[in-house]
Amino acid sequence: MNKFTNIAIVGLGQIGNYLYNELNNKKKEIEIKTGKKIKIVAISAKNKNKKRKFKIDKKIFYSDPLIIFKSKKIDILFESIGQSDGISKKIVETALKNKVNVITPNKALIAKHGDYLAKLAEKNNVNLEFEASVAGGIPILRAIKEGLATNKINKVYGILNGTTNYILTEMEKTGENFDKVLKKAQLLGYAEPGNPKLDLNGFDAFAKIRILSALSFNTKISKNRCIMEGIENIRLDDIKIASQLGLRVKLLGISEIINGQLFETVHPCLVSKNTYIGNVNGVMNAVITEGKPVGESILQGEGAGPGPTSSSLLSDLLSILRGKTKYPFGIPSNKRKSIKSFNNDNYTNSLYLRFEVNDKQGVLLLITNRLAKFKISVKRIIQTPDKKNKKATIVIITHKTTEINAKSCLSIFKKNKNILKFPILIRLYN
Amino acid sequence: MNKFTNIAIVGLGQIGNYLYNELNNKKKEIEIKTGKKIKIVAISAKNKNKKRKFKIDKKIFYSDPLIIFKSKKIDILFESIGQSDGISKKIVETALKNKVNVITPNKALIAKHGDYLAKLAEKNNVNLEFEASVAGGIPILRAIKEGLATNKINKVYGILNGTTNYILTEMEKTGENFDKVLKKAQLLGYAEPGNPKLDLNGFDAFAKIRILSALSFNTKISKNRCIMEGIENIRLDDIKIASQLGLRVKLLGISEIINGQLFETVHPCLVSKNTYIGNVNGVMNAVITEGKPVGESILQGEGAGPGPTSSSLLSDLLSILRGKTKYPFGIPSNKRKSIKSFNNDNYTNSLYLRFEVNDKQGVLLLITNRLAKFKISVKRIIQTPDKKNKKATIVIITHKTTEINAKSCLSIFKKNKNILKFPILIRLYN
Repeated sequence: MNKFTNIAIVGLGQIGNYLYNELNNKKKEIEIKTGKKIKIVAISAKNKNKKRKFKIDKKIFYSDPLIIFKSKKIDILFESIGQSDGISKKIVETALKNKVNVITPNKALIAKHGDYLAKLAEKNNVNLEFEASVAGGIPILRAIKEGLATNKINKVYGILNGTTNYILTEMEKTGENFDKVLKKAQLLGYAEPGNPKLDLNGFDAFAKIRILSALSFNTKISKNRCIMEGIENIRLDDIKIASQLGLRVKLLGISEIINGQLFETVHPCLVSKNTYIGNVNGVMNAVITEGKPVGESILQGEGAGPGPTSSSLLSDLLSILRGKTKYPFGIPSNKRKSIKSFNNDNYTNSLYLRFEVNDKQGVLLLITNRLAKFKISVKRIIQTPDKKNKKATIVIITHKTTEINAKSCLSIFKKNKNILKFPILIRLYN
Repeated sequence: MNKFTNIAIVGLGQIGNYLYNELNNKKKEIEIKTGKKIKIVAISAKNKNKKRKFKIDKKIFYSDPLIIFKSKKIDILFESIGQSDGISKKIVETALKNKVNVITPNKALIAKHGDYLAKLAEKNNVNLEFEASVAGGIPILRAIKEGLATNKINKVYGILNGTTNYILTEMEKTGENFDKVLKKAQLLGYAEPGNPKLDLNGFDAFAKIRILSALSFNTKISKNRCIMEGIENIRLDDIKIASQLGLRVKLLGISEIINGQLFETVHPCLVSKNTYIGNVNGVMNAVITEGKPVGESILQGEGAGPGPTSSSLLSDLLSILRGKTKYPFGIPSNKRKSIKSFNNDNYTNSLYLRFEVNDKQGVLLLITNRLAKFKISVKRIIQTPDKKNKKATIVIITHKTTEINAKSCLSIFKKNKNILKFPILIRLYN
């Protein structure tokens, strides 16, 4: 019998490398807390000689991660490559089939293949843990699976992407435009230097919402697209106008059971500055659950970066070292139900609409008539003339209306020569 | 072998009775999540025939809870009597010695005898779980023990008592005085109808802080008194003045490692209305931890009432049903260190001081001279005359000073005939 728990780390980027260092530093503490001695016996990455923040032991380096299982007895594998398919999927699959426990921060993988991989883990009687895949250092998955376990959760939502929250906060604070703040975020390491698209377009937050839904409602991961919008179209003008109205733009992920159907979405929202969610700023993440009997629970913390992520990866490790095998999604896979999706067309919100128009008589009337035709009633109009250029900005806050009405109503404005751009739409959170 | 996990509930007050009902309702769900069938085989309370919200099965009722262990095989005991000693201690002790797992929301018991009981549980290889003892439905203990397990936590603080937070919030909102709002809290079930003293004087929050310290810092439960103040001396006047200054009164529990020494306190604080903690209102609780590498984590939720408490009790139950035996405080008792206490005299804060004085020349000078003598420098003075009565209110916000300086400085004002009451002191949170 091996008296060590053998660990392999595949992927030595920012996160894998930080984790490698943490595991080495915290061996003693982990032994005290769990009674188990851990040993990193294999590491793998694309480039053996890449410059890394923490020095790695090249004697245990494998160029091909799939070889590891053939040459060493591994108990726990950390996957920190981060692809939704390809080698990430292959390595996790292989590990589980070889009865190796898997820990991963890979939300793209879990959101896409979580159901299949959970089943595979259960079949092989090993754990698949992914606390770090949602909201970095916030132990939200464990809270739902364990701390709030027997509650009936009806809604889970929050700020799930630190990059976009940083950008929105910074734009409001400094008055700098999107491109400038994005560059700053990239310099600070908050946004991917190469391709920040998956953060900005809501994809990253959407993967997290899918995982949260599955855990909160004991359902299979939904395949439906629902509404996914990022912050690419949010302009400084909108942030400034919102601020004057006591509102703030936040990219929210929302998952809710409406009439027994699952509604999942990620889109920018206008929230009141006086609310809790309106004051979660910078790179902070926050997740709010509404459950019975517990009521509303809020978890807030740093959502990204190697420190918080590593905190969650190690909590997964301790969970495996301390306990028996657990169901990856809290209940057996065969008890997780498929759930019908809510029809997005019926999603209802008050809207913020911003029109850039020629400052001509009749234009406002054209807009309000069009709104009235689709039974969208106006709560507030703010018209700001730009006399020099004979233009004007018209901002309209509407009463609640459905997605389908809003979409149909706005479609016509593509063609009108007095409407200079297709109107900006931001939903109000209520 | 018994295919059921046998459960006993001792104490059928508001919480025990609610729990009894929840356990019966959620049997199926618990079986799905853990694979274990539970059965309530014994209940006990002072009064068998008391009117309860949920009907109990009198066939399994025991007048003397200590008999239970002699007549039935119990796997898990819920203790919900709530005394720090007496029968609560006796029953928990007896259970652990009989190798019965114990779950309790009893913070007074754990804060006083937690070290001893944890050792007893470890010796007998059973679990002692007390998630519900701190912050009701918020899974904060599990977060510290598991979700944030390998972080080095340096500070933990928050709003730990829903009753006092409700009272302070309501006083500010309605402008009603302490006594009136307390009565309302009692009517709503937020404060004990008979004796709300332990909530109001900070004792309840202090017990919770002790438990949080022990878990956060891996130390033994401290026996030192430190500073414990409740909200009994907070007057509506102070709340109103604070509000004008952009501040809000909150009863905070704070535990921190300062220069390697433990500092624990509960006292009212003035916090900015713009901060997170300043916006945790009503019966809400919030706990904030500062750890490395995770950074700041916030958990917020309903802190009291049978629903949230029962949510935590059931999370303890699932933890026992799912896993192996765990250390009650996250690490073995013999690894938990004693820690020296920080000298309260050196605790440093800005102060809010309110003096009721005779409106005579020289009184303000008397006060400021006295402050100067103790090197307490003044940041702000607000003097409000009450000409009709020839009195005045003087509010002084000071720069930072130590407890010992503040105490010595204020002592003289007991004797001065122009100072009509001993000054009100509220520390500013910084």
